[in-house]
Amino acid sequence: MHLARVIGRVVATRRITGLATEKLLLVRPLDEHGESAGNTLVACDIANSGLGDLVHICDGRESTLALAETYVPVDATIVGHVEQFEVQEDVGGSAQ
Amino acid sequence: MHLARVIGRVVATRRITGLATEKLLLVRPLDEHGESAGNTLVACDIANSGLGDLVHICDGRESTLALAETYVPVDATIVGHVEQFEVQEDVGGSAQ
Amino acid sequence: MHLARVIGRVVATRRITGLATEKLLLVRPLDEHGESAGNTLVACDIANSGLGDLVHICDGRESTLALAETYVPVDATIVGHVEQFEVQEDVGGSAQ
Amino acid sequence: MHLARVIGRVVATRRITGLATEKLLLVRPLDEHGESAGNTLVACDIANSGLGDLVHICDGRESTLALAETYVPVDATIVGHVEQFEVQEDVGGSAQ
Amino acid sequence: MHLARVIGRVVATRRITGLATEKLLLVRPLDEHGESAGNTLVACDIANSGLGDLVHICDGRESTLALAETYVPVDATIVGHVEQFEVQEDVGGSAQ
Repeated sequence: MHLARVIGRVVATRRITGLATEKLLLVRPLDEHGESAGNTLVACDIANSGLGDLVHICDGRESTLALAETYVPVDATIVGHVEQFEVQEDVGGSAQ
Repeated sequence: MHLARVIGRVVATRRITGLATEKLLLVRPLDEHGESAGNTLVACDIANSGLGDLVHICDGRESTLALAETYVPVDATIVGHVEQFEVQEDVGGSAQ
Repeated sequence: MHLARVIGRVVATRRITGLATEKLLLVRPLDEHGESAGNTLVACDIANSGLGDLVHICDGRESTLALAETYVPVDATIVGHVEQFEVQEDVGGSAQ
Repeated sequence: MHLARVIGRVVATRRITGLATEKLLLVRPLDEHGESAGNTLVACDIANSGLGDLVHICDGRESTLALAETYVPVDATIVGHVEQFEVQEDVGGSAQ
Repeated sequence: MHLARVIGRVVATRRITGLATEKLLLVRPLDEHGESAGNTLVACDIANSGLGDLVHICDGRESTLALAETYVPVDATIVGHVEQFEVQEDVGGSAQ
């Protein structure tokens, strides 16, 4: 899973069957410093997310497991809201 | 899922069984500014897409869920047409 | 799926059970201009491909769907031959 | 699978059903020299991992196989602790 | 699948159930010239591989298909040994 920020909305009226009513948001993956990390994704939202929310997303096939109907062609879903994350940069001095 | 633009057609007459009749298009993934983001893909189209259309695509195993016959070796499918997308860049001042 | 060019052969005599007889080829993913795009892959071939052929490949779990026996640990398969592809670069003036 | 270092914690109270109680950690993928390699991930932990631990993670759909309940939308899980890893750089003089 | 070279060993004593006894190796993906291509992976080995061996690996969910027990959270497996690979660089003069 990835940390991500909700940065926009997608209006898509003509869709294939099975994906007719999902709410779609633009999310930007973040690294552990809150910086952009990777390409913007279109994610399904069932967690009542809004613009600016810090979330964690799941991508790939398992994304559909978050939806009521799992046979939906979806590969990114917002699975939770992140209140806070802490990073301790100096963990583990050496590689081994 | 990713935003993408339909940029071309693929003519592929000799195919394996199970993928005999799918319409194949070249799509270019886009970021939230409409700029190219990632490698061009060959995607199945069941949404009546045309050249220049702004779409959202699904890649990976779940792509086949969009097709009538799900046991098709396909890993990118156009799942909807995007009329509009809005980005609010200044959401979330700090990372946390 | 990706466009790709067959660029070589792999000779692999000692293999795990279930992957004993598949023909293996080296393929180079291409972008919409026919330029190299991404790392060379080892792909199964059931489409009678030869050196220099322009093909489209499927990667990930769904690759096995192309094979007679789907419980094979394979993640790239040549699923068709591409006779031609056309790109129209000037489609869609603005992002939205 | 990838080598990774546990570098932080994620506090996420509001989550979708099915992912309610998993412990979430920030992990940084490492290369064979212990250097950062790739984007930081949010991983489920069922191996009692702590900050600074060297672990190996599994990403993608198969991550859920590590959990008691496999129908959980999860795509990264810590599957073991690494006590030590050895690299022999000079193996195989030529490519073939 | 990818060409790869076995470059090291991973000692991981504390693991989750289901992954208790697999032999783990560090492998470096290679391109068609035998040069490093992509991040080092931790791969399961059931093909009796040793340091320096040239192998081809399978990553993603289908990796588990190589193992006796397929419900193992594994995403990279050595599926065969490569005796030789040949590349013909000058195949296909033009892109189309």
